[in-house]
Amino acid sequence: MSSKAAIAGNVLWQKTPKANAEFFALTYGALVAELVRDVEQPALIAGELDTMGHSMGMRAMEEFLAKTDTRCSSFETSPDVMTKALKMFLGISADARWKSAGDNQSKTYGLQFTDNPLTLFVELPDEYADLEYNQLLAGFCRGLLEMLQFDCSTAIAQSMLAGDTINEITVSLNQVLEDGAGEDYQEE
Amino acid sequence: MSSKAAIAGNVLWQKTPKANAEFFALTYGALVAELVRDVEQPALIAGELDTMGHSMGMRAMEEFLAKTDTRCSSFETSPDVMTKALKMFLGISADARWKSAGDNQSKTYGLQFTDNPLTLFVELPDEYADLEYNQLLAGFCRGLLEMLQFDCSTAIAQSMLAGDTINEITVSLNQVLEDGAGEDYQEE
Repeated sequence: MSSKAAIAGNVLWQKTPKANAEFFALTYGALVAELVRDVEQPALIAGELDTMGHSMGMRAMEEFLAKTDTRCSSFETSPDVMTKALKMFLGISADARWKSAGDNQSKTYGLQFTDNPLTLFVELPDEYADLEYNQLLAGFCRGLLEMLQFDCSTAIAQSMLAGDTINEITVSLNQVLEDGAGEDYQEE
Repeated sequence: MSSKAAIAGNVLWQKTPKANAEFFALTYGALVAELVRDVEQPALIAGELDTMGHSMGMRAMEEFLAKTDTRCSSFETSPDVMTKALKMFLGISADARWKSAGDNQSKTYGLQFTDNPLTLFVELPDEYADLEYNQLLAGFCRGLLEMLQFDCSTAIAQSMLAGDTINEITVSLNQVLEDGAGEDYQEE
């Protein structure tokens, strides 16, 4: 994250009303546990978390745009907006890294971070080693980007819960949406 | 809440790691929505929320006792501990009011508050008017008290979500537990 984006993100984070981080993590854990009981297959659980994250991300970006008077007209400038929004809504300090794309302009970047409010105290039991516990964050990023008119695929590429040294969410642009995608959201 | 307990609660709250209040409320909303899909009957949903809250409360009080070096040897002094813990874990500023009990010493009090982090943006649709959305808080209080060796019944007596002017959780002492109840929790 550029130091300017980092500072702006921190200012937004300071202003944001807060809840207890531990209580939040326990609540998220209860949500995942409920899905485990209800849905069972790890892939489907991740799908549910992704969908929930997506609608939270749409809503969060709507608020972010209203509060910060942000413009983001090109995908190339979206990493700065994303790092600010992740700081404001999750307290996460992420670094954005473009993925190499040979001669072409890259359409993919990774958001890397080590602080993850979802995983306080969390250890996955062996039988759920395949469960993408953080998938809500990938869906959240997808929702944030969609509200900026960028239809993207997002994925958890690295997870400290699975033994990686960092967490990474990859973002790949599929297409720039026409104005009006936001209206679908209103009608939901 | 006595002003001394209020100040102590605020100090604890300031020191506590934080999450975004809105993201927390949306996550809790997702949890309730998942239960609505899965369990359907409002009374059973409340039961699930109560159970989750209870285990979160047990865990929270364990941490509270470790961090604050608190002693609470009589039920009569428990309202102060409860108001501090509600502030530390939920940011809630509660007032405790003993319920009149005629000639006998009262074994019941109400915890009254207006700030409720669970219900940011929440409006219950008409078909879920009977859903006790805040039941997690009643379970949470029951868990907090059980860790203090007080077996209590707790209930949502008033809810602003249901049109009341305040929120109130009533606490009634059933019995003082013998030392060692905490061991059951360890084994869970």
